[in-house]
Amino acid sequence: MQTEKGQSIEDASMRVIEAEVGPHSYDEQQWQVVRRIIHTTADFDFADANAVVFSKNAIDFGTDALRSGCAVVTDVSAVYGGMNKQNPKRHSNEVICRISDPVVVKYATEHGTTRAEAAMRMSATEINGGVVAVGNAPTALLEVVRMIKEGAAKPALVVGIPVGFISAPESKEELASTDIEYITNKGRKGGSAVAAAVINALYKMI
Amino acid sequence: MQTEKGQSIEDASMRVIEAEVGPHSYDEQQWQVVRRIIHTTADFDFADANAVVFSKNAIDFGTDALRSGCAVVTDVSAVYGGMNKQNPKRHSNEVICRISDPVVVKYATEHGTTRAEAAMRMSATEINGGVVAVGNAPTALLEVVRMIKEGAAKPALVVGIPVGFISAPESKEELASTDIEYITNKGRKGGSAVAAAVINALYKMI
Repeated sequence: MQTEKGQSIEDASMRVIEAEVGPHSYDEQQWQVVRRIIHTTADFDFADANAVVFSKNAIDFGTDALRSGCAVVTDVSAVYGGMNKQNPKRHSNEVICRISDPVVVKYATEHGTTRAEAAMRMSATEINGGVVAVGNAPTALLEVVRMIKEGAAKPALVVGIPVGFISAPESKEELASTDIEYITNKGRKGGSAVAAAVINALYKMI
Repeated sequence: MQTEKGQSIEDASMRVIEAEVGPHSYDEQQWQVVRRIIHTTADFDFADANAVVFSKNAIDFGTDALRSGCAVVTDVSAVYGGMNKQNPKRHSNEVICRISDPVVVKYATEHGTTRAEAAMRMSATEINGGVVAVGNAPTALLEVVRMIKEGAAKPALVVGIPVGFISAPESKEELASTDIEYITNKGRKGGSAVAAAVINALYKMI
């Protein structure tokens, strides 16, 4: 929830974004997502044509799954931190982030993976039919892609927007090569706040 | 804590950042902060001269206060979400974010403020001698500046990096006009992940 002052600042911010971006290449639903990303980052690079990439049914599948009470699986707790907390409560979505789970930490150490990667593997049940939001770790996104290709899990939507210099752009291209619905972006930018902004925008459309 | 693979990816990322930025205007300590911001955002604008602004003793005062077990007060929970959770535990820093406290929500609604703004006012005790990290709300930063000017609280360091289109740049200039130690940036960019990156970088220097 927002106070009146908070909402009025948000509305004014959105008008500034609209005015400064002007015409763009996104359809109306996609623009709700992109505009919220810019609101979160003040980075107008995200308004560029195809900076944010949507598969054909991404928004419909994502909002349907959330409305139906699916799980939301995040790679890092900062994605949950950036999410409006009322939304998952309202739609009975369990938000899951196992990165600090001792079992995950032990598995990652023993198998030479990152914690984020192990956390995804150990959330296969919730990823199946759920919405995945990766904002930080390309390794987590690559693991989700592997799980999809192996048939280990079939998410309703993958929001894959990790930030980084090692494998981030490649992990996004891998995601786009699957037959799963996705929202991702081109290049290195992204982050937990951006992934959370996408999820918040989807909830707004329900 | 990071696994071996996680640490090796971070090290490789930092080398990429070093190589791409090349010479810069920051001193060695400041660069630890700026480099971690770029690591978190993949946004090289932060490497520009004076994109990130440090008061004279900001890093020393901040690390000293954290080492001594001060409180860390954040405007939104996403700042805590982006913080490495081991650090405050190790140094007994209580991390405080009152934005969802029912008392704060009630106060904000009744007084026509934002929740973030009310949360700051109601954390005066912990802000006094503490480290403040504002990543989202310019209104929260402006409230901290007011509290400093009124003598209601004297923080050891204010990390003021809200993102936004309404008052964000102005709130940062206000912060820099106080006699309190600060780390801020020029312009609209910023965000909870950036504020968390600054705090994480400070802990690394302890």
